[in-house]
Amino acid sequence: MKLKIAVLAGDGIGPEITQQSIKILKAIGDRFDHEFEFEDAIVGAAAIDLLDNPLPEATLDLCKKSDAVLFGAIGHPKYDNNPDAKVRPEQGLLKLRKELGLYANIRPVTTYPKLIDQSPLRPERIQGADLTIFRELTGGIYFGEKSQSEDGQSATDVCTYSVVEIERMAHLAFKAAQQRRKKLTLVDKANVLETSRLWRKTVKKIAEEYQDVELDFLFVDNAAMQMILNPKQFDVILTENMFGDIISDEASVIGGSIGLLASASVGGNNAMFEPIHGSYPQATGKGIANPVASILSAAMLLDHFGLIEEGDVIRKAVATSIKLNVCTEDINKDNPYSTEKVGDFLEGLI
Amino acid sequence: MKLKIAVLAGDGIGPEITQQSIKILKAIGDRFDHEFEFEDAIVGAAAIDLLDNPLPEATLDLCKKSDAVLFGAIGHPKYDNNPDAKVRPEQGLLKLRKELGLYANIRPVTTYPKLIDQSPLRPERIQGADLTIFRELTGGIYFGEKSQSEDGQSATDVCTYSVVEIERMAHLAFKAAQQRRKKLTLVDKANVLETSRLWRKTVKKIAEEYQDVELDFLFVDNAAMQMILNPKQFDVILTENMFGDIISDEASVIGGSIGLLASASVGGNNAMFEPIHGSYPQATGKGIANPVASILSAAMLLDHFGLIEEGDVIRKAVATSIKLNVCTEDINKDNPYSTEKVGDFLEGLI
Ligand SMILES: CC(C)[C@H](C(=O)O)[C@@H](O)C(=O)O
Ligand SMILES: CC(C)[C@H](C(=O)O)[C@@H](O)C(=O)O
Repeated sequence: MKLKIAVLAGDGIGPEITQQSIKILKAIGDRFDHEFEFEDAIVGAAAIDLLDNPLPEATLDLCKKSDAVLFGAIGHPKYDNNPDAKVRPEQGLLKLRKELGLYANIRPVTTYPKLIDQSPLRPERIQGADLTIFRELTGGIYFGEKSQSEDGQSATDVCTYSVVEIERMAHLAFKAAQQRRKKLTLVDKANVLETSRLWRKTVKKIAEEYQDVELDFLFVDNAAMQMILNPKQFDVILTENMFGDIISDEASVIGGSIGLLASASVGGNNAMFEPIHGSYPQATGKGIANPVASILSAAMLLDHFGLIEEGDVIRKAVATSIKLNVCTEDINKDNPYSTEKVGDFLEGLI
Repeated sequence: MKLKIAVLAGDGIGPEITQQSIKILKAIGDRFDHEFEFEDAIVGAAAIDLLDNPLPEATLDLCKKSDAVLFGAIGHPKYDNNPDAKVRPEQGLLKLRKELGLYANIRPVTTYPKLIDQSPLRPERIQGADLTIFRELTGGIYFGEKSQSEDGQSATDVCTYSVVEIERMAHLAFKAAQQRRKKLTLVDKANVLETSRLWRKTVKKIAEEYQDVELDFLFVDNAAMQMILNPKQFDVILTENMFGDIISDEASVIGGSIGLLASASVGGNNAMFEPIHGSYPQATGKGIANPVASILSAAMLLDHFGLIEEGDVIRKAVATSIKLNVCTEDINKDNPYSTEKVGDFLEGLI
C-alpha cells in the first residue's frame, strides 16, 4: 500500500515522540512492503512564532492532500496564562479538526498486566478494563460562537448540536460496540442541558437499528465517578466534545500512564492520529517523554487503512516492551529508558 | 440560638436520610440549648406529581422566610429518559438555587483512616487528602438560554459568566484558602472557552489582594486526571458550575463513598445544605441509604451560623461511627446497619 502521511509534530515533546512513530512506521513499511511517504509541516506555537498563524495555509493544504495526518502535541504555557492572547496554539488543532471534518475522536483505554501496579487504582478494580471513548470532535461548545460584552464585563460560549452531528457519531459508536462487547453508554447531562436532551433522543432512535447493542445513559457527573469506581462496566462510551475531553483524560489513569493512550480522529475524507496527552513543555528536549502513545496512534493509522496485521505487530511490540520494562520514566522509575531508546527497542521488534 | 429551618426532603432516598439529620439537629439543640424549628415543604418529582411544579410557590416562600434550608435529594428516572418532559424535578433545585441567590457551593472532601481501604484508589495516594471545591452555582451553562431550532433539528445551550459572578466566588475561595493550606487552583478550559479566559483573568486580578495564597491553574481535562493521580496536591479548588459538578462527583471516590459528602450552598441572605449524592431511586424505602452526607450537611449548617463547636460534635460522632464500622452497606458490606440505626447511633453520641 502507498500512503502519504502529513507529519505535524507540533509543540513541546511533539517532535521527539513523533520521530519515534515515524521510525516505527518506516520499519513496518520495510517489513510489509508498503510505501509510506512522510512530509512535515508546522502547527501550533511553533507556527505562531514563525507566521503568526497556528495553522498556516500550507499546513492545511498538505493535510488535505495527504491520506492521513500524524499529529504530535500542541500547546505552550506562554499562551495559557495570557487570557488576552489573540492567537493561541490550540486554535491550530481545533481548526484542523474542523477543516478536515474529523468529527469522531476514538480513544481506546486498556490495561497491561505489568502496569496494574502503576495505576493509582486498586488492581481488582481495573484488571481487564477495556473501553473505548467515542468523543464528538467538531461541534459543541468548542466550536460555538465565542464573545465578550463590549465593556469586557462578561463572556459567552455557545454550545450547539444538530441531529445530523449526533446521528453520524452514534452510528460509528454503535458499529464499534457491535464489534466489541455490545454495550453503549451515552454520557450527557440531560437533566440540565437542552443539547444533551437532543443527544439522548437522537441516540435512542438510532438504537433501534442496533438491537443487538445494549444502550444505557449516564449523567456526566455520575460517569466521572463510575469511571473510577468500576471502569470494567464500560464498553463503548459515546459523548459530546467537552465531556469527552474530560472523561477521556480521566480514564487515562486506569492504564497507569497517560503516555500510553492513542487516539484516532476520523470522518470525512481524512484521518488524524495523535496521542491524547499534551505537549508536556517541562519535558521538552529531555528525552524522557513516552513515545508509546504516539506509536500506538501510528498503529491506529494502520488499522484505519485496513492494515490490521501491521497494527497488531506494533501493539504486540509495545506489549513486549512493557512486559520487559523497556519504558520511559513515567513507567520505569528505577531504570528509565530514553524516548529514543524505547523507539529503538520497538523498531528492533518489527 | 433560634433557627428556622425549611426541610425539603425531595425525591428517592431524600426523605429517609433527611429524617436522620433532623434527629441529629434536634439532639444538638437539646444539648446546647438552641431552638431549631423545622418546617417541611415539597420539591422535585414529588411536587410535580402533586402540583405539576417542581418548586411550588409555597415552598419557595418558606425557604425565603427561613434561616436555612435542609435539602435531601432530587431526581426521578421517569423524567431522565424522557427528553420531551416539559417539567423535570431538577428544575426545582436549579430554580431554588437561583431564587435564593446561592451562588457558591462548597464541597469538602476528606478521608477517614478506617475507610482508606474502601477507596478504589491506593492508600498512599489518598492518605491525608483534604480538599474543598468551590463550585459556582447560579451561572454558566446551567442557567444560560436553552433553545431548540423550530424544526427540532438542533439544540443550543448558552454559557455566560460576568466579572461580578466570578469575583464574588473568587473572594470566598481565596478567604477559605487563607484559613487552610493557602493554595488555590482554578480549574477551567482557558485554551478553548471565552468564559474560562474571563475566569482566569478575573481570578488573577483578585489574587493580588491575597498575596499569601498561592494561585495556580489547571485545564479541566488535566484536573480530572490529577484528582485521581494525586489528590493531595489540592487545597481549595475554584471552578465554574459544570466543571464543578463533574470534578466534585469524581472527587467523591477519594473518601470511599459518595454517601459521606456534604455541601453548603451560600450567598445572598440564605443558605442551603445538601448531600452531593443524588436521589438513588433504587434504594428508596429500603433503609440502606447512607445518612452521613446529610448529617454532615447539617453540621455545615451549624458552622454557617457560627456554631462551630456544635458542628464539631457531629463530625466527631461521625468519625467514631466510621471507626466502629457502624455504617450502612455502602461502607459496611458484611454487617450493614440501616439508615435509621446509623442515625440512632449518632444521636446517642450527642
Ligand atoms: C489541546 C486541547 C484544545 C485539546 C482539546 O481539548 O480537545 C486536548 O485537550 C485534547 O483532548 O485533544
Ligand atoms: C441534580 C442536578 C441538577 C445537580 C447539578 O448538576 O447541579 C446535582 O448533580 C448536583 O451536583 O447538585
